[in-house]
Amino acid sequence: MRKQILVSNDDGITSKGIRALVEVAATFGDVTVVAPDKPQSGQGHAITLEHPLRLYGVDLFWDIPNVRAFECSGTPVDCVKLAKNVIAKGQQFDLCVSGINHGSNTSINIIYSGTMSAATEAAVEKIPAIGFSLTSFRHDADFNAAKHYVHHIIETALGKGMPESNLWNVNIPNLPLEEIKGMRVCRQAKGYWTEEFVQGKDPAGRAYFWLAGHFVCEDEGDDTDIWAIENGYVSIVPAMFDLTHYPALQPLRDLF
Amino acid sequence: MRKQILVSNDDGITSKGIRALVEVAATFGDVTVVAPDKPQSGQGHAITLEHPLRLYGVDLFWDIPNVRAFECSGTPVDCVKLAKNVIAKGQQFDLCVSGINHGSNTSINIIYSGTMSAATEAAVEKIPAIGFSLTSFRHDADFNAAKHYVHHIIETALGKGMPESNLWNVNIPNLPLEEIKGMRVCRQAKGYWTEEFVQGKDPAGRAYFWLAGHFVCEDEGDDTDIWAIENGYVSIVPAMFDLTHYPALQPLRDLF
Repeated sequence: MRKQILVSNDDGITSKGIRALVEVAATFGDVTVVAPDKPQSGQGHAITLEHPLRLYGVDLFWDIPNVRAFECSGTPVDCVKLAKNVIAKGQQFDLCVSGINHGSNTSINIIYSGTMSAATEAAVEKIPAIGFSLTSFRHDADFNAAKHYVHHIIETALGKGMPESNLWNVNIPNLPLEEIKGMRVCRQAKGYWTEEFVQGKDPAGRAYFWLAGHFVCEDEGDDTDIWAIENGYVSIVPAMFDLTHYPALQPLRDLF
Repeated sequence: MRKQILVSNDDGITSKGIRALVEVAATFGDVTVVAPDKPQSGQGHAITLEHPLRLYGVDLFWDIPNVRAFECSGTPVDCVKLAKNVIAKGQQFDLCVSGINHGSNTSINIIYSGTMSAATEAAVEKIPAIGFSLTSFRHDADFNAAKHYVHHIIETALGKGMPESNLWNVNIPNLPLEEIKGMRVCRQAKGYWTEEFVQGKDPAGRAYFWLAGHFVCEDEGDDTDIWAIENGYVSIVPAMFDLTHYPALQPLRDLF
């Protein structure tokens, strides 16, 4: 039985990163691509409730065998829902891979990332899932070294399974292959964004605010995804979607 | 020193639920409302990167003392970022409250919910935060019983602090006050949505897909938020935003 692999992303179906991921995924089985028809970075776990979605077959990947592809007008999470419930109705995917994102999704970025939210949605819906990100935001980023690790990680997940967590957040440093030191299994680094909105006036003279800001890492640990990336390693964080903070249950019961 | 309270939501600044929340919050201190100028349900942790935001002062809450209010063209998370970094620059909020949402945010709905994402963003940015939801999606839902519990919970959070977790997900059953049995501190129930997209043709004859579906609860526990709501209790889940699945770290290290 050939493996069935779902591919999505948040940079849009025409991005270089998703093509790199499709090229790797197609070496393992049949690939179904369902990805946004436009950039959806920072869409987090958004879904489209207020209006209908469009879904069209496209032949962008005609040169790669065993690939069918669809572009969707919605968010990354919408893409996964349509893939599972409309396109593959009745068929189970063996794996969902999302990315390769143009830009890091380490630390708290996991909750803003459409790439990781596509993977998370798949995992919630019982499809083992991996999000891949390269730490370069460039439109023409070089994914060659990343593809090497993506291949190894998909091969491991399909061959040996994913223990305890069916959701991995993988970040790959933007380095030549020979400069990447290897892989590290990590926890999510503690950190947050502090914003400095760019303020200006539009051509009609009305004020606008444009999200900017910089990331603050609060974590000195050498077991975090930030540490791994900064030290030339590929990071893998096993992730989850039960947001209960269990250590707080008893103190909170004492309070109420 | 008067308490400084930030209020946001995802149903939009004109919704009945946010007015109920502002009425309660204003009894505890100075209130700053920053909320979306239109419904943003299901926006999850989306942020607006690709275009600028608008932010306008409004006098919708003129009849409630100690309230200033702003409507924002962005997502609930954008609202919190603008509140902290533009409106209150240099001033710290003592508490952020989000909602009262028209509809349940129990179980996995925490990750789709704009209401909870506003609260989560505040917590990430070091502001203690509580999301409140009433289990009625009606536009004209009755928030009177909910307000009683919102008052009690805000009073507790401000008076006694929030132990271990600075983020609470509160759901309130849609019942008259005398039928609500009390409060339960809970974990997030395991569950997911299975989608059944409504398919049709638009007036131009093109196919569309509209997200529908039903929630599947996989959890029989009597310590979950779903159980609490179904049994007439207000649920409080202490939540967090470190998505690392710690029990998977060692097995994953053995794998790679």
